[in-house]
Amino acid sequence: MADKKLSTDPYKGVRDFYPEDMAIQRYIFDTWSHTAESFGYERYDASVLEPAELYRSKTSEEIVNEQTYTFTDRGDREVTLRPEMTPTVARMVAGKRRELSFPVRWYSIPNLFRYERMQRGRLREHWQLNCDLFGVDDYTADVEMIALAYQTFINFGADPEMFAIRVNNRGFMEALFKEFDVTDVDTVAVLTRLIDRKDKMPADDFREALDDMIAPSRVEEFLKTIEGRDESILDTIGTDTTLKQVLSGLRELGIENAFFSPSLARGFDYYTGTIFEFFDVSEENNRSLLGGGRYDNLTGLFGGDPISGVGFGMGDVTMRDFLETHDLLIAPITSPTLMILPTDESFNFEAQRLAQQFRAEGISVSVDATTKKIGKKVASADKALVSAVIVLGEDELKSGTYTMKNLPEGTEEAGTVEELLGKIIT
Amino acid sequence: MADKKLSTDPYKGVRDFYPEDMAIQRYIFDTWSHTAESFGYERYDASVLEPAELYRSKTSEEIVNEQTYTFTDRGDREVTLRPEMTPTVARMVAGKRRELSFPVRWYSIPNLFRYERMQRGRLREHWQLNCDLFGVDDYTADVEMIALAYQTFINFGADPEMFAIRVNNRGFMEALFKEFDVTDVDTVAVLTRLIDRKDKMPADDFREALDDMIAPSRVEEFLKTIEGRDESILDTIGTDTTLKQVLSGLRELGIENAFFSPSLARGFDYYTGTIFEFFDVSEENNRSLLGGGRYDNLTGLFGGDPISGVGFGMGDVTMRDFLETHDLLIAPITSPTLMILPTDESFNFEAQRLAQQFRAEGISVSVDATTKKIGKKVASADKALVSAVIVLGEDELKSGTYTMKNLPEGTEEAGTVEELLGKIIT
Repeated sequence: MADKKLSTDPYKGVRDFYPEDMAIQRYIFDTWSHTAESFGYERYDASVLEPAELYRSKTSEEIVNEQTYTFTDRGDREVTLRPEMTPTVARMVAGKRRELSFPVRWYSIPNLFRYERMQRGRLREHWQLNCDLFGVDDYTADVEMIALAYQTFINFGADPEMFAIRVNNRGFMEALFKEFDVTDVDTVAVLTRLIDRKDKMPADDFREALDDMIAPSRVEEFLKTIEGRDESILDTIGTDTTLKQVLSGLRELGIENAFFSPSLARGFDYYTGTIFEFFDVSEENNRSLLGGGRYDNLTGLFGGDPISGVGFGMGDVTMRDFLETHDLLIAPITSPTLMILPTDESFNFEAQRLAQQFRAEGISVSVDATTKKIGKKVASADKALVSAVIVLGEDELKSGTYTMKNLPEGTEEAGTVEELLGKIIT
Repeated sequence: MADKKLSTDPYKGVRDFYPEDMAIQRYIFDTWSHTAESFGYERYDASVLEPAELYRSKTSEEIVNEQTYTFTDRGDREVTLRPEMTPTVARMVAGKRRELSFPVRWYSIPNLFRYERMQRGRLREHWQLNCDLFGVDDYTADVEMIALAYQTFINFGADPEMFAIRVNNRGFMEALFKEFDVTDVDTVAVLTRLIDRKDKMPADDFREALDDMIAPSRVEEFLKTIEGRDESILDTIGTDTTLKQVLSGLRELGIENAFFSPSLARGFDYYTGTIFEFFDVSEENNRSLLGGGRYDNLTGLFGGDPISGVGFGMGDVTMRDFLETHDLLIAPITSPTLMILPTDESFNFEAQRLAQQFRAEGISVSVDATTKKIGKKVASADKALVSAVIVLGEDELKSGTYTMKNLPEGTEEAGTVEELLGKIIT
């Protein structure tokens, strides 16, 4: 054994999930699963290890090399710890395109890794709910995807007033840019990325950057348009009706907190139609909660006919922050319902036997087989939020009658195992 | 976009989980969780990334370098994709030893990685149920751990005749070796490792290797002893009664398929007391299913007083093979209960609205908003094992009365949403 003591810290930028944090994590994952399944989405998964080339074609070399965990294995294969799930789901859908029955509705809760420069609150790994619908071009698929993301929040007990939904469309953006004489493909891309960074830069810098792309006399008008929510422009700019239909579809489904947001860009290159973003409206946590949109040929890299898709991703850290900010976090109790406390080590085995009788009836039971004094055992059980304890000594073993103490209530019940079974509140 | 088409294969040695495989995976994980929780075990987790030094002190440099995924990050930290969970759980218990209330009963279902030389059926990643009990020295903890592993199989519907439990004890092995004049620490280690490999080597080679350690005149007797199951030797060899107590404790709990196995060694260095292994008794799948045991100072590397523990680990691939071999695999249906099939794209939105009404009552519903003909939509739903479909056309929209077709039964029911709700079998 080494003389130097090892550190008990986890690797830099990752988290340990002790039972209390794990219980919250599972509550989040379970609510996500339950919601996705209520919309008929099926769960899939893949390994965190992916061939690095999966990211090289859509992402710049610089991002793959500097912002992902990429290494060379001993078979000289370049392997990446997946930074996002979209390339993986595209790979899987493309791989079974002939066998799958479209529309495909899939969700996953993958573990994702990014090699972030260390900053406060920036983690190198997180988990994300990813929902995707493949094979439906109709705007109702976009509505469904936003409605599913909305329902997730409702199922956590959120009030629609706690968050808002920004909706925009890449096609509409291009039509809008055209109104301001920006039509060159490269300038469209630069302008889109600039708008995407708008909220993260000083207003003056943003305005100055606009000057390079839009006629100075019209910058003010452009700014006013993208900062507004005026839906009437949807009737005059461009010919595609999708954005209008999505917005009115959401309202007809009773989703009142969605609005037109011409300044929403979403940084990802692969979006081609509807884009959306949920954000927290509270002052303490005013930030993006999830983002998604439509991409019309994500599987193109793998060949074959285009398969259209719409999807979104939302992270566990962001979700937990939202729930904490709005006081919605329920911490589930992870301790057993019943604990058997033998008064002496010689009764430990009989305690196991008694535990087994309760367990056979579906009750979660454990035994405190330590050498602690009985008072300490009761105190430990109480601290661990166990509902009930049975102290097991010679008298109980002889009589087959046990006294069950309800710890939160401070009450007691006596009886045989059969009699006590009916009195346990799980 | 790249001209060369990307492969849709996953990285070498890892698995994609399409919905049908994911459903089996979740069934396995859920049964594991449910069983561990019925014994009062709390779930924890940690990142798959661990500092490499966590493995260097207990494992040879060669194993860390050649059998794990270890790489250097840009902050010059050596990081490993965890190959097993035990060092992580030891790190976490040691890290909060002052705050934790012992006994600590924890379980986890981690994703683990090994850099295996590629062979048929050898994967580079798997998932494992890990259960550990810390802070109880008594033999009843060993009995509990074996009973928990046993119950896992029972909860999958296994019959105890399908598998058997080998039990041994490291202390007993040392006492046995002493009887054959093997007392030198190094020779004890070599002999233990040799016995561990016994079933994987030709009988003659094993015997020959024994000749170097045991007096030739007694090799036959030694072989007969370790290959037997004669419990009477427990009364004459050594003074520790743990092994006898564990075996009789298991029988008293009704576990009839456990037996004394003096040739069980378990390769891990950290075991110090009871060791056990479950194996499949079928001819087609005759192999180890899980292994575990007692380790008395796993947290020693991190400093502080010793904390005793007992635990086991079992893999998902092995579990699935066992279930398939014994015809115990239930493939859960992952498709929605109800599917709404609009006859025309113009009814897609109304189909979403109708779906929402059923969803509000807890039913899993989706909409086939493709442009397929209605006959094809019904066929797709049937193929996907959807229970019921509602065809939505102009008549239904006008009347508010829908016909729900039960696909497996071939029956139909007509009515309003309210009327149909009572007739859905989920």
